Amino acid sequence: MLSKQTVKYLKSLQIKKFRKEFGQFLVEGEKAVLEVLDSTIEVKELFITESFYKEHFCNIQSVAYTLCTSDQLGDIGNFKTNNAAIALCTIPEMGVVDWLTPGWTIALDGINDPGNLGTIIRIADWYRIPQIVCSEDTVEVYNPKVIAASKGSFSRVRIIYGPLEQLLRPCPYTIFAADLNGISIYEQNFLKQGVLLMGSESEGVRINDRGISLQKITIPRLLGLAESLNVGVATGICIDRIVGSGH
Amino acid sequence: MLSKQTVKYLKSLQIKKFRKEFGQFLVEGEKAVLEVLDSTIEVKELFITESFYKEHFCNIQSVAYTLCTSDQLGDIGNFKTNNAAIALCTIPEMGVVDWLTPGWTIALDGINDPGNLGTIIRIADWYRIPQIVCSEDTVEVYNPKVIAASKGSFSRVRIIYGPLEQLLRPCPYTIFAADLNGISIYEQNFLKQGVLLMGSESEGVRINDRGISLQKITIPRLLGLAESLNVGVATGICIDRIVGSGH
Repeated sequence: MLSKQTVKYLKSLQIKKFRKEFGQFLVEGEKAVLEVLDSTIEVKELFITESFYKEHFCNIQSVAYTLCTSDQLGDIGNFKTNNAAIALCTIPEMGVVDWLTPGWTIALDGINDPGNLGTIIRIADWYRIPQIVCSEDTVEVYNPKVIAASKGSFSRVRIIYGPLEQLLRPCPYTIFAADLNGISIYEQNFLKQGVLLMGSESEGVRINDRGISLQKITIPRLLGLAESLNVGVATGICIDRIVGSGH
Repeated sequence: MLSKQTVKYLKSLQIKKFRKEFGQFLVEGEKAVLEVLDSTIEVKELFITESFYKEHFCNIQSVAYTLCTSDQLGDIGNFKTNNAAIALCTIPEMGVVDWLTPGWTIALDGINDPGNLGTIIRIADWYRIPQIVCSEDTVEVYNPKVIAASKGSFSRVRIIYGPLEQLLRPCPYTIFAADLNGISIYEQNFLKQGVLLMGSESEGVRINDRGISLQKITIPRLLGLAESLNVGVATGICIDRIVGSGH
């Protein structure tokens, strides 16, 4: 049975302050919950409908669960309707930045739209970018909208928050900053390692002049008239040019 | 003065049924309103704050306007806060599909997330794709969330809705459908004209077997684990490979 107190607690995890205080977060919806059960994230408890239980009881054998109605799940979570499941998970310890393992890194400077961060995490997961380095004011990965938009990819990409200059200073590779004025991504040669730095839609990259040397790159607009591209789309296009086609 | 009746009317335009009935829609926010004033879209009336008026009265000389408070604008529109402007606009007559003018076309089969459609319209505008052909169940372009996500690009791209097979049947070029199983976009050669067809995140492209011949293409996942990419991101990556770098 779902107590009033539990509902209140679970609802509080919609708010960053309480996620931080209790070190827990929620994953919502059938697919996302099945993915998180299959990941390295610790699931403390499941809140599930009877039909979810009947269909997936093999997947949840070792996890505590409480049966709920769809209405209760809708009330607890962020989804308008949820006739399946919510998982209460432990926020894992934040990893550390790794400049030794081969590969590219995405760095984010002040991305505050949760949908955009979720989309960028999916891009990293698709192109096997192992880590995303975020400025402290980038939206939190355990925000329920980020979790939803990342479609399970959040559990497979290492995401590190901190003062961006400090995190990037030891980086031994070229840092490419997406900018409206830079070298065309069609002309720039990219090596097997490096950093792609994306700024927010409103402010762009802010660490330009703080002792970090950047190589500006741009997605040529050719004859188009749009002022910019969505930052998730721009990240996808740059990463595809950088690591796609076998780089 | 803003009458109760006007507020009621403007609020009704959040709903598709009323937009269709009255043939009008709203554009919200300083930048978007300035862009629409500078476009071919007919602005019937402006609802603006005094500060917006003072700053931009040169831009609004020939348009009827009503002064409002920020609270009133927030109440009418879809934005949480709006201290600038809302434009009441006429829905223009829908254009017709043009297969004669050189260039690429984007076709959308059942995209229902307004943010994704807005993002795709921005991509079209950036890469100078003149038209987007949409299935009837694709989210409506005059939905306020589409308008907001398109950042003004909606007024520069021709968007046509209809039965997709019917709209695409006369197309004299190859129709490339994005699919998880197809020829790699890194290996496929693209000509100067063609159609990129994107399906919805949940159902993919549905018109496969309805007498339209499609060439399936795919963004290779290489070693990644994500199940898919966001449809806006996937559209951006495909279009960049198709028309970017001088094609």
